Amino acid sequence: MGVGVDVHPFASGRELHLAGLHWPGETGLAGHSDGDAAAHAACDALLSASGLGDLGALFGTADPRWAGASGVALLTETARLVRQAGFEIGNVAIQVIGNRPRLAARRTEAEKALSAAVAAPVGLTATTTDGLGLTGRGEGVAAVATALVVAV
Amino acid sequence: MGVGVDVHPFASGRELHLAGLHWPGETGLAGHSDGDAAAHAACDALLSASGLGDLGALFGTADPRWAGASGVALLTETARLVRQAGFEIGNVAIQVIGNRPRLAARRTEAEKALSAAVAAPVGLTATTTDGLGLTGRGEGVAAVATALVVAV
Amino acid sequence: MGVGVDVHPFASGRELHLAGLHWPGETGLAGHSDGDAAAHAACDALLSASGLGDLGALFGTADPRWAGASGVALLTETARLVRQAGFEIGNVAIQVIGNRPRLAARRTEAEKALSAAVAAPVGLTATTTDGLGLTGRGEGVAAVATALVVAV
Ligand SMILES: [Zn+2]
Ligand SMILES: [Zn+2]
Ligand SMILES: [Zn+2]
Repeated sequence: MGVGVDVHPFASGRELHLAGLHWPGETGLAGHSDGDAAAHAACDALLSASGLGDLGALFGTADPRWAGASGVALLTETARLVRQAGFEIGNVAIQVIGNRPRLAARRTEAEKALSAAVAAPVGLTATTTDGLGLTGRGEGVAAVATALVVAV
Repeated sequence: MGVGVDVHPFASGRELHLAGLHWPGETGLAGHSDGDAAAHAACDALLSASGLGDLGALFGTADPRWAGASGVALLTETARLVRQAGFEIGNVAIQVIGNRPRLAARRTEAEKALSAAVAAPVGLTATTTDGLGLTGRGEGVAAVATALVVAV
Repeated sequence: MGVGVDVHPFASGRELHLAGLHWPGETGLAGHSDGDAAAHAACDALLSASGLGDLGALFGTADPRWAGASGVALLTETARLVRQAGFEIGNVAIQVIGNRPRLAARRTEAEKALSAAVAAPVGLTATTTDGLGLTGRGEGVAAVATALVVAV
């Protein structure tokens, strides 16, 4: 099993991509690729479970192939690498922490997009921090993920 | 397996309920229900492991039945829903992050209360952040939890 | 399975010990023992998985035997206690969150040191928070860990 955390700051003028979905009309997230903190946390959870390195090592900012890659593309490729290394993927769980967007209305849709990328069940939950910390102040979005893989 | 995080701010004039226990003489936590961040993180860990949604979806602020519910009551009902969906609960682990209260003296008592709610082993640990971040500044209490469930 | 989080502030004039390695020329971390947040998070993940208490309870600041102990020493002793309690250790995954040091260049070396301490596979990943929160402001280093143990 593995764990991953990711944080991206809001950036006006960017489209929001989070949890494998596009969110029209919401403020986007800055950072490498599309800033999808949920997908990135899931990648690091899968990679740490498998001992394959981390997101920065595999899809680093220096690598032009992944500069504009979506979180879903990175997650799809991560799942492929994990299976190639001899693991089956049991499941991934992701919690998104932030004031915006309101994930509740599209939770099932996001789970479908992320589960399709991983080709295994992905559970998605969301919470806020009641105004505290970087997410409570509305500075950005955080995500924490765990993954279970089994050597086959 | 699943993961959950929760944060509640301290609120003077409230009784403190945390990790399934009442803490007389300590400042309470604001928020939905009794503000028991440890119990809430455990709920989201169980729910994300089972793909059943999250605390907000199941026991939302709009639902008057759960408005004043204790964290233990939410955790008990969550465990029931997880089993009803066809999962056995392996264990839950929770770490509470904050300056107050001092969990150490009542750690075993809290583990008993939480384990009784889940009807499975719950391990509880506590830490501080050496003055950093929202918990270090004494603004609130955070908790992170993981849960293992097995489809039966 | 269990989870652990740890945070230590940077402290000038201290040597940096993190993820089982000494980092010459980097600012150190304050706190109990050597401030190795990665090793400490791993200890709490193992302890919460096993229901054995937490780092503070087992190696508390009041206990002079552990006052200057390295994170690796605490992790080695934790793994011994977990096995003594009748568990086999499946794996440990740790994510370090911070601006410094750059773990990437020594990730494999750190995984070896930590895996030797636990005597089981330890996966290590690293991330930053794009300038946000306590780690983004460069105030300290955080780590989150999960551990899988099996009763034998
Ligand atoms: Zn990211
Ligand atoms: Zn809560
Ligand atoms: Zn520590």
